[in-house]
Amino acid sequence: MFYTIDILGTIAFAISGVLVAFNKKMDLFGILIIAFVTAVGGGTLRDLLIGDTPVSWMRDITYTYVILTSAVFAIIFRSKINYLRTSLFLFDTIGIGLYTLVGIEKGINAELHPIICIALGTMTASFGGVIRDILCNEIPVIFRKEIYATACILGGITYFLLNELPIKTNIVFVIAGIVVIATRLLAVKFKIALPNIYKE
Amino acid sequence: MFYTIDILGTIAFAISGVLVAFNKKMDLFGILIIAFVTAVGGGTLRDLLIGDTPVSWMRDITYTYVILTSAVFAIIFRSKINYLRTSLFLFDTIGIGLYTLVGIEKGINAELHPIICIALGTMTASFGGVIRDILCNEIPVIFRKEIYATACILGGITYFLLNELPIKTNIVFVIAGIVVIATRLLAVKFKIALPNIYKE
Amino acid sequence: MFYTIDILGTIAFAISGVLVAFNKKMDLFGILIIAFVTAVGGGTLRDLLIGDTPVSWMRDITYTYVILTSAVFAIIFRSKINYLRTSLFLFDTIGIGLYTLVGIEKGINAELHPIICIALGTMTASFGGVIRDILCNEIPVIFRKEIYATACILGGITYFLLNELPIKTNIVFVIAGIVVIATRLLAVKFKIALPNIYKE
Repeated sequence: MFYTIDILGTIAFAISGVLVAFNKKMDLFGILIIAFVTAVGGGTLRDLLIGDTPVSWMRDITYTYVILTSAVFAIIFRSKINYLRTSLFLFDTIGIGLYTLVGIEKGINAELHPIICIALGTMTASFGGVIRDILCNEIPVIFRKEIYATACILGGITYFLLNELPIKTNIVFVIAGIVVIATRLLAVKFKIALPNIYKE
Repeated sequence: MFYTIDILGTIAFAISGVLVAFNKKMDLFGILIIAFVTAVGGGTLRDLLIGDTPVSWMRDITYTYVILTSAVFAIIFRSKINYLRTSLFLFDTIGIGLYTLVGIEKGINAELHPIICIALGTMTASFGGVIRDILCNEIPVIFRKEIYATACILGGITYFLLNELPIKTNIVFVIAGIVVIATRLLAVKFKIALPNIYKE
Repeated sequence: MFYTIDILGTIAFAISGVLVAFNKKMDLFGILIIAFVTAVGGGTLRDLLIGDTPVSWMRDITYTYVILTSAVFAIIFRSKINYLRTSLFLFDTIGIGLYTLVGIEKGINAELHPIICIALGTMTASFGGVIRDILCNEIPVIFRKEIYATACILGGITYFLLNELPIKTNIVFVIAGIVVIATRLLAVKFKIALPNIYKE
């Protein structure tokens, strides 16, 4: 179940990488690399920071297959990809929900402070996009708009608050994931952004 | 004592991150991230390279609190921050002095060559600013001007030279730190830069 | 023998870094850093991802000496460096051949999947140039043109295919290296590029 969601998230992230690389007129190899780092970049940073090496995607070849297949698919059907935009957005949102929780769990296993665990979860979910933007020579989109990381952080806080209550870990896990997903969906639907601090 | 200086340095680095992120019109989340990476980026790279994981700031939550508090403070009082410019410059300079020595000491503990230790010290002191500039899509300022890294390197050389003499380690430590700080202060005061190699 | 080639590759990579940094009008320190990361960046990423720390160049000071000497040499004789362009291209090409194989071998020793080993080899050979371009605020050249990574990948595939046959490992090693070098030389000579996917 978790694994399926993880794969869906990986697909969505990989395809989002392909789309950005297209806009930058990268060649085939560049596109594959951007797809790859978008999908695994966050988890890689997390594994490096906590010292869990070789990093995850090196130990499970499935990710590589999924990413390459998704990227090739996105390249071939690139003129049709707009029809999938809503599905991709959903996959992506579900992906960040799950990635956040994977990061938090890894932090807990490494016996880190809850705040650090939430940071790890947020990184897992968002850093792939940051690397994608750096490699494409853009200021990372996550630093300029969108309730993205905020959704991960809220989900992480939910996780640790509910964990204090007598609720089963599995259920806490699901609720926290739903908080991430719902926050993002609502923010996008109602165009909610972080408060603008430049004009007052 | 060292810990206090470390915290002062962290504050100065975090605030310098906030100021750069402001100029790039980043949102609240982007500003916090830039503050964070500016403050801990150098130490994180050092820890990753020598394999000392989880990296330092993950093991001591104090840094997170200090950085977040400094950043929020800088955001709220941003119109007043100019009055603090001299204090911040001093904190920053003291910070690089200390960060350099922390990096060198970690290198020695990992039994690395003195040159590598000096490189680690310089990285600890300067790499946070490099990541800050990359994330803001600028050529890192350290590569274009300012006696910054040079000060770290001179301090590092001083450390290893004095260590050959019969002087107590603590005193060597203090003198090397003073060399870093004095070099930077004098360079800024007298506008000393590296020799220009482009026009001759 | 391998060590000599490794050093030649390091020299070529370091000088290529100096030339790029020149174009960006970096100061002396910036130039040295770019030379350094171009030469050791790929191996550093590889070592971090598989958890082999402290990373290679920290354990063998020779690399540091070679890189600094090459960089100083390139800075002093920068007006003459054009005469060496062909030699440098050859060193660089031989360098990526060897770096690819070093990466693959490290992956095998870490018991990783052949595809991951090939990825490690390609990274070792190409990532230094990627970091160089990111630090210089360019979209990495490897993502936009040139059969560079493709040569590494072909060499990697050759290695694993031949390893199935009853051929001595040393000979497989040499043949795979020749495939990398020949692919790159032929691609540059005949201006072969990856298929353009933008105009059809």
